[in-house]
Amino acid sequence: MDYQQKKKLLMIPGPTNVPERVLHAMTKPMINHRGNEFHDLYKNIQEKARKVFETEQNIVVLSSSGTGGVEAAISNIVKKGDNVIIPVFGEFSRRVAQYVRLIGGNPICIEAPLGSAPSFEEVKAKTEEVRKIKAFCIVYNDTSPGTKINWLDKIANVALDFNAFTIVDAVSILAGDELPMDKWGIDIVVTASQKCLAAPPGLAILGISEKATKYVMKNEIHLEYFNLAKYIEYSNLRKETPYTPAVPLFYALDEALSLVLEEGLQRRIQRHRITAKAFYESLEAAGLKPFVKPEARSNTVISFEYPENIEDKKFRENLEKNFGVVIAGGFGELRGKIFRIGNMGEVNRYHVLTTLNAILISLSDFGLKVENEEIIQNARRTLEAV
Amino acid sequence: MDYQQKKKLLMIPGPTNVPERVLHAMTKPMINHRGNEFHDLYKNIQEKARKVFETEQNIVVLSSSGTGGVEAAISNIVKKGDNVIIPVFGEFSRRVAQYVRLIGGNPICIEAPLGSAPSFEEVKAKTEEVRKIKAFCIVYNDTSPGTKINWLDKIANVALDFNAFTIVDAVSILAGDELPMDKWGIDIVVTASQKCLAAPPGLAILGISEKATKYVMKNEIHLEYFNLAKYIEYSNLRKETPYTPAVPLFYALDEALSLVLEEGLQRRIQRHRITAKAFYESLEAAGLKPFVKPEARSNTVISFEYPENIEDKKFRENLEKNFGVVIAGGFGELRGKIFRIGNMGEVNRYHVLTTLNAILISLSDFGLKVENEEIIQNARRTLEAV
Repeated sequence: MDYQQKKKLLMIPGPTNVPERVLHAMTKPMINHRGNEFHDLYKNIQEKARKVFETEQNIVVLSSSGTGGVEAAISNIVKKGDNVIIPVFGEFSRRVAQYVRLIGGNPICIEAPLGSAPSFEEVKAKTEEVRKIKAFCIVYNDTSPGTKINWLDKIANVALDFNAFTIVDAVSILAGDELPMDKWGIDIVVTASQKCLAAPPGLAILGISEKATKYVMKNEIHLEYFNLAKYIEYSNLRKETPYTPAVPLFYALDEALSLVLEEGLQRRIQRHRITAKAFYESLEAAGLKPFVKPEARSNTVISFEYPENIEDKKFRENLEKNFGVVIAGGFGELRGKIFRIGNMGEVNRYHVLTTLNAILISLSDFGLKVENEEIIQNARRTLEAV
Repeated sequence: MDYQQKKKLLMIPGPTNVPERVLHAMTKPMINHRGNEFHDLYKNIQEKARKVFETEQNIVVLSSSGTGGVEAAISNIVKKGDNVIIPVFGEFSRRVAQYVRLIGGNPICIEAPLGSAPSFEEVKAKTEEVRKIKAFCIVYNDTSPGTKINWLDKIANVALDFNAFTIVDAVSILAGDELPMDKWGIDIVVTASQKCLAAPPGLAILGISEKATKYVMKNEIHLEYFNLAKYIEYSNLRKETPYTPAVPLFYALDEALSLVLEEGLQRRIQRHRITAKAFYESLEAAGLKPFVKPEARSNTVISFEYPENIEDKKFRENLEKNFGVVIAGGFGELRGKIFRIGNMGEVNRYHVLTTLNAILISLSDFGLKVENEEIIQNARRTLEAV
């Protein structure tokens, strides 16, 4: 099977398209993960990642998916019986609550209907009611509905009042939207390599505050591979990981982080905003309805409801077969009801226009009358700033 | 920093040198891990891995190091209070015992001095004494002293008598030495990508018997990322992994497994035997003493004691700096006392002779009189069969 011949435009919410420079970084020769070359590589990654996380605190890299990173963050902080505040507004935040329950914690869920997110006021009110709180576990951007929390900058102050930790799952958003870790006072930020960083999947990157570090280092947990104390210890002692790292993915991440810094983090975030705007404007102009309320819309995962007569699977098959454009369907109870576009990583004019063209023509194929020409011209104007 | 210019011969016990074909497989374009291309890729990997594990049972691939794979195997079988028989004869088998203790199991250790391995009779006697046993957790080849268990073929029969599971850590040996999983009746075999399979690090591959599958599927555990039931379920339902897989490493593993099957598993094992023989013979002829007793010597990790006046760090630095050959030192209490050569993966005539040449000349550099010419000529003869 020749994968090269099947190269497609991957517009799903991760893995995302990986730039050639990043792909080819993986072909560097294998090195000893206990030797100087690896020490330099890991040090470079940490220094660059600090700039992208906007932190001066600890950075560690786990050879696992983002789920592994989130599990590590939670299980190193949350103990049996601990109260944990969790805004629940999609599949991934629901999983966080499940996981907290699984390890014996007490998840206190503030739920919002799909397509919206719990407000800051609701979360604050619940917090003041519960009072004894170990941590806030917040999915910043829930990939499953494409919904974003818009009050993350305010949570650390609340957490401080209750001496609680803030753990943020930023897997599908970091480097694609604002998240200045130190300024916002977040204790643990988790992201993954294959989303807005545009590296291949397989690594979880964690920013860990001094406060969280202190707690984690004196803490006993029943996990080995996800014991963060070991990652911090090995990193501080000699820029190594406790267990054999996925070296080629470290090469790729190093290169991907260089690309982020070459572009500039703020410019990158701005680019994501503009491409998101082009998607939202154009698809609304085509008569489609965004699934998420305006105040909770994500710039990195864009979800739209299907018009009544369009069948999800057929629509996406048409896109992939005829245009080589791959987008995602809905998750769980949203299956068949929405489609989702990953607006992540290297997403630029070409990605947006190609995807829009494909979607607009497909809408016609399925019998919808759409002003393709005008919509695309408007999108081009919006995208001029990219 | 230009890693290309620093290409070295990596003769450590993993990661090992990765063939170009395997490295370049990683540059294939990113694919949707919930789409047909990934389904085909995973199916191919499983089919090929079954041939290498010599099993017709379940194969799953975790995006983690070998340690993660071993943790997954143990934590999905061993519960609080369970008796677990563990031969302890090096750092990695010691860690298995620690981990069993960490999760509340009761490790029953049969220890052997470093450089030897517990005998089958000792293990059997202890088993008959304890009687109530949940599992045997056996490190087939302990990488830290370079010591191998030579009775693994007999353990399943004992386990059967006590209705116990057999879990084998074969990280540093599978595909480099005999381990016919089904024939020997092992329940879970764990290996990693970066050892004898000669793929890059970052994946753990597990063979899981029907008996273990049945147990795992109805079992509740407090882990998410290492919950094997999910891996088996997703694999059976649609050839997916429950969490985003490290796609480039899957490409690489697929290619690496093809190379194993193109060579033929038995020929590959035979090649490892011959290159190991050349190492042992030649270094003994140079006056060095193998660290491990003859009956417990490994074909994949070869360890020798340092002569009195040779300092580990200086010796290995000399090898790396002058010859570009990287070997490993000792681990834990063996630090400074032994050096270890990884005889794994694509190891061939060139690797052995280059490494031997470098070592022999370095021995002279450090004042040892060595018959280089004769030793190398003998090694060449031994290696003719490769």
